[in-house]
Amino acid sequence: MTGTHTDRAARIITRCREIAACTEVPGEITRLFLTPSMQAVHALLRDWMEAAGMTVDIDAIGNLRGIRHGLTPESPRLLIGSHLDTVPNAGAFDGILGVVLGVAIIEELKSQRLPFAVEVIGFSEEEGVRFSKPFLGSLALVGKLDADTLARTDHSGISVRQAIEDYALDPSQLPAAALAYETFAYLEFHIEQGPVLENEDAPLGVVEAVVGQTRMELTFTGQANHAGTTPMHLRHDAMAAAAEWIVAVEDYASSHDTLVATVGKVEAAPGAGNVIAGRVTASLDVRHADDRVREASVLAILKHAKAAATKRGVHVTSTKQLEQPAVPLDPHLTDLLSDAAAQAGFPARRMTSGAGHDAMILAPSIPSAMLFVRSPGGLSHHPDEAVLPQDVEAALATAMEFLAQLRDDRTNPKDGHA
Amino acid sequence: MTGTHTDRAARIITRCREIAACTEVPGEITRLFLTPSMQAVHALLRDWMEAAGMTVDIDAIGNLRGIRHGLTPESPRLLIGSHLDTVPNAGAFDGILGVVLGVAIIEELKSQRLPFAVEVIGFSEEEGVRFSKPFLGSLALVGKLDADTLARTDHSGISVRQAIEDYALDPSQLPAAALAYETFAYLEFHIEQGPVLENEDAPLGVVEAVVGQTRMELTFTGQANHAGTTPMHLRHDAMAAAAEWIVAVEDYASSHDTLVATVGKVEAAPGAGNVIAGRVTASLDVRHADDRVREASVLAILKHAKAAATKRGVHVTSTKQLEQPAVPLDPHLTDLLSDAAAQAGFPARRMTSGAGHDAMILAPSIPSAMLFVRSPGGLSHHPDEAVLPQDVEAALATAMEFLAQLRDDRTNPKDGHA
Repeated sequence: MTGTHTDRAARIITRCREIAACTEVPGEITRLFLTPSMQAVHALLRDWMEAAGMTVDIDAIGNLRGIRHGLTPESPRLLIGSHLDTVPNAGAFDGILGVVLGVAIIEELKSQRLPFAVEVIGFSEEEGVRFSKPFLGSLALVGKLDADTLARTDHSGISVRQAIEDYALDPSQLPAAALAYETFAYLEFHIEQGPVLENEDAPLGVVEAVVGQTRMELTFTGQANHAGTTPMHLRHDAMAAAAEWIVAVEDYASSHDTLVATVGKVEAAPGAGNVIAGRVTASLDVRHADDRVREASVLAILKHAKAAATKRGVHVTSTKQLEQPAVPLDPHLTDLLSDAAAQAGFPARRMTSGAGHDAMILAPSIPSAMLFVRSPGGLSHHPDEAVLPQDVEAALATAMEFLAQLRDDRTNPKDGHA
Repeated sequence: MTGTHTDRAARIITRCREIAACTEVPGEITRLFLTPSMQAVHALLRDWMEAAGMTVDIDAIGNLRGIRHGLTPESPRLLIGSHLDTVPNAGAFDGILGVVLGVAIIEELKSQRLPFAVEVIGFSEEEGVRFSKPFLGSLALVGKLDADTLARTDHSGISVRQAIEDYALDPSQLPAAALAYETFAYLEFHIEQGPVLENEDAPLGVVEAVVGQTRMELTFTGQANHAGTTPMHLRHDAMAAAAEWIVAVEDYASSHDTLVATVGKVEAAPGAGNVIAGRVTASLDVRHADDRVREASVLAILKHAKAAATKRGVHVTSTKQLEQPAVPLDPHLTDLLSDAAAQAGFPARRMTSGAGHDAMILAPSIPSAMLFVRSPGGLSHHPDEAVLPQDVEAALATAMEFLAQLRDDRTNPKDGHA
């Protein structure tokens, strides 16, 4: 670990906080897709990128793209990045850390010659706040920004297409936003947004897969009745049935490694203290890196719901709201990233990502890898979201080692990966 | 059982339905305290009472009171009644059945001489809808209508005192609404409003006590967190804690005879499917005829809450919202009522009342007894609320037998009851 890295880590954090000042809501960090505050972000990053010798452009979906050219215009290209947008009242690191770190890597490379170009990308949209659809930036890179998406409107009735034009961009140029054909890999740095690394006293995590997700709504229908005059054995208590099921959901997930299952939304009707609940609606969110495990878990959990309902003469129905398969990241790049972290002196935990990221969108199209940086307190989507300077330093050191290994790897491919 | 009783039962039901037409909301039965619809009820009952030879008056709180005089003006007096008001969108029998049945008893007595007078009372207010305070009618009889109550206002800002004046009654005459000093007993007939009698195929129930009640609100405070990135073992899930407790409440009450405990209101925050609940508020309603059992149950149930919370690193607090002791009805009158039902050929189930009734207000002041009539489907406070004609016939037959036994009882007191 060099003094240079320490300085750069401090500077990365300073730059993230500088960008945090670009907001639509004074006093908080709120930066949605293609809003005026994004212009300021683009200007800052463009300055830093150009100062580092990069060629900067903004594609038709508003992604900021800086290129450190390779030896020839046809040089293979490594893509590094994350997103520029935030949730409302966000923290200063979710997304932007990965972009600022990308720029720092370029600065760190100085005049070092590499057998590939490096493109640093700041995705214009990942959180899905403005148009209730996430990943607009990365979807453009893989050609999945369809007409339906472009027609979506925000709460002011402005469409995605209109927003693009309002930002002085040209929707007809969207196909040109696609990944350059020379691109051979994608690398994303992101805060963990969870408590795993902190809990294990680890600065970094190497992501093996983004988990798949099932979201459902269950409705327990019993019989609303007088809480005083209805003896226990004559009740059809929808809340008691739902409660037994919620405990079963927690039990089931707790006894299956790396499975998470959550009932976060519960509504009881009529919802009076002196009336037995006649109807309860409850959400279910199940995630796992192995789709078969997730699917089997959902079935088992629904069976528990049925059992908890039936024994009380309660009826239960369920509707699926979302089913998203798991996305494995590239095993070779992931190993390389693990090796790099170890070489840099920060053995990284292998883990899955419980949240979606741009890497999830790109991984089916190009080999992708992802490095998590510890989130103090597991905190994210919150003004107190933070990173530790030494963890950013570890991430930067790992990145430099990864580039060195990638250089060697590409010079002497071991197992067919190009 | 005589043909006369059958006819009278049919007539009682017809009269209840006739009174149901007195409503403030066309198409439903909604009759609040001292509203215009109550004038029509008073007029109908006054006609029936006067035709039966009774002297009718309306006291200062709006209770309709008809007297069948005794042999002398100082004759002891039996009070029979229930309430005239309803909840919004009510059924046709809750309350009014007991008043109409009282009139039918007088009609049935014809010229039969009794050693006591009989007063039939239609309480003006029991449900507590208009002024968010129940039992205004019966509270006046026992001198418990205090200044605070008279100053309460309805949603239009009209006070109880003003409502009395608007109905052309005189609040200064409230003390005269007190129980006549000659009154020696109160008898109330009421639909069960629960499923116990129907479940046991019994037409009638003799009420031994109105249960005591504790109402509380519990707040479980854990930590809201991302449903995808927070492993099960690092969660502080307020909803899972509350759910385990809700199941424990049901278990506890189910394993303690005649105890009922209900969690009818549950609210989870932030209440999103992909966020672990950080806070859950839940109601608790516990009822039992023995206050010591209820108090011990509440303590045990709170202990379960603490245990369910603690094992998840969740904090739980509770606030008491209501604590109402049980009200035993008069054991001697209750036995007499049981005997009367058996003599009439309808052995009645001994039971407790899980809901409050006017008898609960009067019982501390005069010996009171109460007879429940089966509620088909356990249904009440609902337009489909009903009674079976044969059950009303059974109630009337029991009433006539009760009066005969009371006559004998008062002629030859056995155990000191006067």
